Amino acid sequence: MAHLLTTDELNDALKDLPNWHLEQNELCRSFVFSDFNEAFTFLTKTALLSEKLNHHAHYSGVYNQLALRLRTHDAGGITEKDIKMATTISGYLKA
Amino acid sequence: MAHLLTTDELNDALKDLPNWHLEQNELCRSFVFSDFNEAFTFLTKTALLSEKLNHHAHYSGVYNQLALRLRTHDAGGITEKDIKMATTISGYLKA
Amino acid sequence: MAHLLTTDELNDALKDLPNWHLEQNELCRSFVFSDFNEAFTFLTKTALLSEKLNHHAHYSGVYNQLALRLRTHDAGGITEKDIKMATTISGYLKA
Amino acid sequence: MAHLLTTDELNDALKDLPNWHLEQNELCRSFVFSDFNEAFTFLTKTALLSEKLNHHAHYSGVYNQLALRLRTHDAGGITEKDIKMATTISGYLKA
Repeated sequence: MAHLLTTDELNDALKDLPNWHLEQNELCRSFVFSDFNEAFTFLTKTALLSEKLNHHAHYSGVYNQLALRLRTHDAGGITEKDIKMATTISGYLKA
Repeated sequence: MAHLLTTDELNDALKDLPNWHLEQNELCRSFVFSDFNEAFTFLTKTALLSEKLNHHAHYSGVYNQLALRLRTHDAGGITEKDIKMATTISGYLKA
Repeated sequence: MAHLLTTDELNDALKDLPNWHLEQNELCRSFVFSDFNEAFTFLTKTALLSEKLNHHAHYSGVYNQLALRLRTHDAGGITEKDIKMATTISGYLKA
Repeated sequence: MAHLLTTDELNDALKDLPNWHLEQNELCRSFVFSDFNEAFTFLTKTALLSEKLNHHAHYSGVYNQLALRLRTHDAGGITEKDIKMATTISGYLKA
């Protein structure tokens, strides 16, 4: 099982994830897209990734806005799996 | 523009929407599905409907859980458009 | 790697998949839904499954029609992975 | 109802749609993406657009490949609606 990241490991990881922040022990990011279509297809991209990795984000959105929150439920906090997923999701924006 | 429903109209409409409730002036429903796939494809169904009707729900979810909240932004509350959308969404569950 | 099913194994498997047929060494099924929304969300369900299993169907569709074709590319034909996927997809229709 | 484009109108329109071609009286384009996720979310973008415009492409794909074909069924061929949709879809690639 993935282990909980220590504070040092977490701070290191966050340096490479400039638009993500910690909130209530979750790794969070908000997005604003041009319209609903852009926002929802971005969420679909994340959904397909979730099934591939068997790791599922909390999502919420309305129209062109979307927020994602990541944590590893079994581990009770943030693990390497969340960092990896956040990195992949951020990569989608550069495509 | 769709007009805000009166309290009487709203109470009448809610009789035909047994699993929806009012919360902070929004029409809300929570769903629990068997897994992420079921939950997310149900959301996709709602997303396609949203684009067709040009009326977009607030959504939030994690794994097999999903919550939807409806209001008509221009009107500042619940209108006939929300009732119609809630009715269609409930219909998806009976298919 | 999954092995190619023998003709006997394939015929046995097809008994439990009444709406699927063989065509050019692929396991095929056509679907007609009530509208585009139903057809596309069914395809989305299949897409999420594909990423989970790392096994991807060929799909084609227009409006309320959808066709799926399954084969295992590495094996050059139909394997147990295709039978399993077809069974899961058929199960979606009974939900 | 949208009228069928004349040969001249069609040739003019195709000048602005460099990657689309005519095939059997349909406006067609093939896409190759980096993986299934990219291909399927692009198709989802097109699906949401379809419901918004009430105009639906024929689609087919496997893994990272996708093909779209457009025509206006009522008109029996290519109309302004197809040109407009092809233009929007091409625009998605530049985002």
